[in-house]
Amino acid sequence: MKFKKMLLVNVARSIFSDENWKELNSLAEQNIFLAKDDPRFKEELKDVECLLTGYAIPVTNEHIDAAPNLKYIGTLATAYHAIDSEHARQKGIPVTNIAGYCVESVAEFSIAALLNELRQLDEGKMRVKNNSYSYEGLTVGEIKGKVFGVCGLGAIGMRLAEIAQGFGANVWYWNRTRKPQAESKGMVYKEKDELLSSADFISLNFAHTPETNLFLNEDAFLKIKSGAIVINTVPIETTDLDALENRLNKNDMIFITDHAEQMNKENPERFIQYKNCVQYPSIAFISKEARANMQEIFINNLKNFLSGSPTNVVNP
Amino acid sequence: MKFKKMLLVNVARSIFSDENWKELNSLAEQNIFLAKDDPRFKEELKDVECLLTGYAIPVTNEHIDAAPNLKYIGTLATAYHAIDSEHARQKGIPVTNIAGYCVESVAEFSIAALLNELRQLDEGKMRVKNNSYSYEGLTVGEIKGKVFGVCGLGAIGMRLAEIAQGFGANVWYWNRTRKPQAESKGMVYKEKDELLSSADFISLNFAHTPETNLFLNEDAFLKIKSGAIVINTVPIETTDLDALENRLNKNDMIFITDHAEQMNKENPERFIQYKNCVQYPSIAFISKEARANMQEIFINNLKNFLSGSPTNVVNP
Repeated sequence: MKFKKMLLVNVARSIFSDENWKELNSLAEQNIFLAKDDPRFKEELKDVECLLTGYAIPVTNEHIDAAPNLKYIGTLATAYHAIDSEHARQKGIPVTNIAGYCVESVAEFSIAALLNELRQLDEGKMRVKNNSYSYEGLTVGEIKGKVFGVCGLGAIGMRLAEIAQGFGANVWYWNRTRKPQAESKGMVYKEKDELLSSADFISLNFAHTPETNLFLNEDAFLKIKSGAIVINTVPIETTDLDALENRLNKNDMIFITDHAEQMNKENPERFIQYKNCVQYPSIAFISKEARANMQEIFINNLKNFLSGSPTNVVNP
Repeated sequence: MKFKKMLLVNVARSIFSDENWKELNSLAEQNIFLAKDDPRFKEELKDVECLLTGYAIPVTNEHIDAAPNLKYIGTLATAYHAIDSEHARQKGIPVTNIAGYCVESVAEFSIAALLNELRQLDEGKMRVKNNSYSYEGLTVGEIKGKVFGVCGLGAIGMRLAEIAQGFGANVWYWNRTRKPQAESKGMVYKEKDELLSSADFISLNFAHTPETNLFLNEDAFLKIKSGAIVINTVPIETTDLDALENRLNKNDMIFITDHAEQMNKENPERFIQYKNCVQYPSIAFISKEARANMQEIFINNLKNFLSGSPTNVVNP
């Protein structure tokens, strides 16, 4: 079984190995590739059976209605908020995502980025380059014994919490619902305000939803304690950038994000000037291992649908 | 009880809090401070009761014989190879060191420095500073599932191994003696050659002794597998620098050290040119928590001796 026509919109070729890319393309008789915002999108939809999209590519009810032969929508991301999956459901079209592929990658990146600041590695390397071998003036800390506050105890938050426990941190968590399994491992549930005001390290690990929109607002940034390090590996809409900037100006807190592109969209100069605002490209989710998982799940979703046992359907 | 005269040679004032420095100084009626290689050393010894030294300050049998009133030698370090402790023992003079104060600090630094390279954090930060948000061309890896080879399973090696297990690494160890307790936790003993040739990450965590001198020699560097990351937080005499340079030239292995000063002593330009040779000042052992432990143990050793219950005596 294969699709007659497959339309791929902003599906990153560079994520795939040659072998997997070939296999993906072999799943349809005809493959059309479009970049984001290509005006041919709607026109191409009219005889498409399979629609594959990259992260956050809008697929509206109008798009779906413009594709009378559409049998399958797959997105190369965990988030599928840009797809009208409810409308697709009503028309019997499964929408699939790829979940859980980057749990380890994001959890390890979070520790990596935290330790980079905590140990002042950049300053250390710089000194040696300048032929200075002194540790004078460096103030470095440990994870052990500190309060590690994880906000959002899904798969990534949970894995990060486990690794933090391996370091000997005291893990607190905030989550929409209590997690008895986590609590049996010694992770302690805290209300948001208490977590923010007492944690040494604060990590955001929830999905961006109406509830978590601007989770770090003015009030939150006022509560976070002096010396804290905040790690945001989720969409920047969870963070009020004006409130963040106010707090950065106090120079008593470090904010780390791998969502630099989003953060700097309006004004690339705004946050670059803050030494206590540490910005990375989207590298948290992109380990070799995560890329391999991503390709495998994405292709298997397609193959499983074609063989009659669809997987990772988000709108059953 | 206090000493009549205390001589402090290269004991780093900057390590101590004001309070602890005051307490240390209160333990003698008279305190004399000398820098390393001060020619007054021998002269000052003649009426000294307590001799305190910084890391690797030589105290020979002649020094000891020049101090007829000497009752106590304490060094502000774990290593005491520079002190003739056997000669001191024969004269009934206890030599004390400070052991175990930086276990967590060194173990966490090792993970920090490893992850810094594994996740290409420097390159990531640089891209954002240049207004580039792409992850193209970055190849980042995970600790999970990799072989983490710990050479020397003392207190620091053991702690590092535990943290690595928290990440989901497969821990192998090489040690002078087998460690049944480690093996019961799933750590696997390997001969040196097998460990070097198969481990993804290799960490040196033994003391520098005749046996570990040039542990990483030409043969060892030939065995280390392509893509490996080596972390050396022990004296650089454990590493053959010519053999290291030969291997660095193949550009298929990363070597990390926090002993940059030692490494560059003869030629500061020699290793700086290698991007795959990552050098830090001596910042592995110097977390706030380790400094606090250091002061506490050093002062307590003195107080315990004065009250008749000496601790951390290396030449009993």
